[in-house]
Amino acid sequence: MSGSILYGRDGEVATVTLANAAKLNAVDSAMWRQLALVVNELAADTGLRCLVLRGEGEQAFAAGGDIEEFSSQRDTVEHAMAYHAQAGAALQAVCDCRLPTIALIHGACIGGGLEIAAQCDLRVCGESARFGAPINRLGFSMYPVEMQALLRLAGAATMRELLLEGRILGAAEALAKGLVTRVVADHEVVGEAYATARRICHGAPLVARWHKQLLRRLQQERPLSEEELRDSFAFLDTADYREGLAAFLAKRAPRFRGC
Amino acid sequence: MSGSILYGRDGEVATVTLANAAKLNAVDSAMWRQLALVVNELAADTGLRCLVLRGEGEQAFAAGGDIEEFSSQRDTVEHAMAYHAQAGAALQAVCDCRLPTIALIHGACIGGGLEIAAQCDLRVCGESARFGAPINRLGFSMYPVEMQALLRLAGAATMRELLLEGRILGAAEALAKGLVTRVVADHEVVGEAYATARRICHGAPLVARWHKQLLRRLQQERPLSEEELRDSFAFLDTADYREGLAAFLAKRAPRFRGC
Amino acid sequence: MSGSILYGRDGEVATVTLANAAKLNAVDSAMWRQLALVVNELAADTGLRCLVLRGEGEQAFAAGGDIEEFSSQRDTVEHAMAYHAQAGAALQAVCDCRLPTIALIHGACIGGGLEIAAQCDLRVCGESARFGAPINRLGFSMYPVEMQALLRLAGAATMRELLLEGRILGAAEALAKGLVTRVVADHEVVGEAYATARRICHGAPLVARWHKQLLRRLQQERPLSEEELRDSFAFLDTADYREGLAAFLAKRAPRFRGC
Repeated sequence: MSGSILYGRDGEVATVTLANAAKLNAVDSAMWRQLALVVNELAADTGLRCLVLRGEGEQAFAAGGDIEEFSSQRDTVEHAMAYHAQAGAALQAVCDCRLPTIALIHGACIGGGLEIAAQCDLRVCGESARFGAPINRLGFSMYPVEMQALLRLAGAATMRELLLEGRILGAAEALAKGLVTRVVADHEVVGEAYATARRICHGAPLVARWHKQLLRRLQQERPLSEEELRDSFAFLDTADYREGLAAFLAKRAPRFRGC
Repeated sequence: MSGSILYGRDGEVATVTLANAAKLNAVDSAMWRQLALVVNELAADTGLRCLVLRGEGEQAFAAGGDIEEFSSQRDTVEHAMAYHAQAGAALQAVCDCRLPTIALIHGACIGGGLEIAAQCDLRVCGESARFGAPINRLGFSMYPVEMQALLRLAGAATMRELLLEGRILGAAEALAKGLVTRVVADHEVVGEAYATARRICHGAPLVARWHKQLLRRLQQERPLSEEELRDSFAFLDTADYREGLAAFLAKRAPRFRGC
Repeated sequence: MSGSILYGRDGEVATVTLANAAKLNAVDSAMWRQLALVVNELAADTGLRCLVLRGEGEQAFAAGGDIEEFSSQRDTVEHAMAYHAQAGAALQAVCDCRLPTIALIHGACIGGGLEIAAQCDLRVCGESARFGAPINRLGFSMYPVEMQALLRLAGAATMRELLLEGRILGAAEALAKGLVTRVVADHEVVGEAYATARRICHGAPLVARWHKQLLRRLQQERPLSEEELRDSFAFLDTADYREGLAAFLAKRAPRFRGC
């Protein structure tokens, strides 16, 4: 029996749930496939402003890929290329998501689970969350494309600790090493993740989109063109900018409409 | 009434003060313009060894740009390009400053204030300092050139927290996330900043200049040439190098003359 | 009298010791030369799985280069180029080492010592360890090639603190700023370093080698080729991968043979 991706929405916030309860939400190939579809669909929904990604229950965000599948689904180079193309499409969908994304992390956030969380914009976890990719004890190496994305978040020194030592980091250490944005008590993770989502919803949605685009653009070495610089003032023509300034000067909370 | 940039010197250390008391030292366009001039002038003063940048009073380093100006000074793409060219010249002047620079930070260090502090070599702040750029609630996006400079210090994950969530970080969190060099008790910030300036003055001034140049040079991907490597031994011909070795071997404090 | 590089092995773990007891293990030119030879020789030993680098005794990892040599060995540009070519070869040997490397750090880890530790994959230190490169008070600048390697670990902001202020960081601060992997009580450093070595030995050795190669490859901007991606599945044909999966599914510890 394979796992699945559940999703639902509450106002402007959608929640995507990795669900494979018998295996600590280990991500199997059906889930990778569905995750790409679901995230791409939600990203296109103009009524949404924020995505929360989580694991089902409170035991795990996701404990990794589904190892049991590997002997059938990742047994040859061709199969492995296909498997990781699928995983890569899901990770890319999270990375490319137009909306701000929050990983809500309970318990195990390992291997493929850590790769998904690393693609989110923000990571909120509980004190008993744990992070790692101890695949040195499974006898395989990380797919380079996935390693590259994780390296961007974790840095080379922490990647060496995770991959060479196979170390599992607790929440406090993961915070100190930049793997997560914020640690709260376990029973406050849900509350804090959705409070964060609300704070995102209180900002101007176009500004969030532009900031995400710009941060990705700046990952490229290529210098900014005059045209790109001029385009960065697109906000000048928006009702939200006028509202933002007016609200600031009137010392009241702004009400943004997303235009 | 617009703010101004004050400056003064005490021996080899100059202090540059962002002064706009009625607005928590918010940086207006007159101040951006003066800041570039003042920093460039002090950087050329061969009698100086270190610059301290601070806000007037103890309420704020600088609470941001001066929002009240925006509806007149940043209302069209042309005006916005001109406004940010001015801000960019000031930020670049701090970045290019030949002398080591220290941001002395009390209270609010927000938006443009954070951008100025990020260009300094070291940032010393008090426990109640706070850092952020919550412009998502003002309805505008950060100018890409300014974002790039801040991204270099803060990293992408922290930039997402600051820009998408609009989060304000306290001093301890700002330290953990690499936004500041050191946090001390509020009443010790001035003392610690000037003690740091004195430690800088106790080093060889040419070495400080070379280290700044090299760190900037290494930001470029371009490999180091044979000539650059040979030039890096320019210290061999200096009186300061001879003094440094002699003092070390004699177990006494060195007295550098800057040559 | 010059220092020397000692080495020995215990099963799959070799230990390399910087030994110059009279000078807190300061690294002289004979030691730089030997360090390159010893590390290259050990890296080629197929019976080894991990290298531990340490200083002799418990006072220092290494307190820097051997300043007393400088007036004779680094007095002209030609001599300086030759001296740093030698140091560079040693640092490169540690960086290129096929085996995972652990720096076991007691006490002073300064200048050249910090440069060596920074080239190791992991850094385990005691609470009283201290880190820095206060060469601003010696009147010389860091060799750009060595600065580049240290910059990769420490980041530009911390490099400015170390080089411009000449600051010496304690263990807790070094951890917070990413200079070390882990801090333990002084009397537990040896135990923790070798426990880390054993954890590395419990992983598949080929996987460790591939992870090291991939992490270095990803430092280059050049995109991954289709061929490199296919080659990353070399593990599929190894006995260690079959053993890793079998052990996982049988919920037992794997026994890897290195093939």
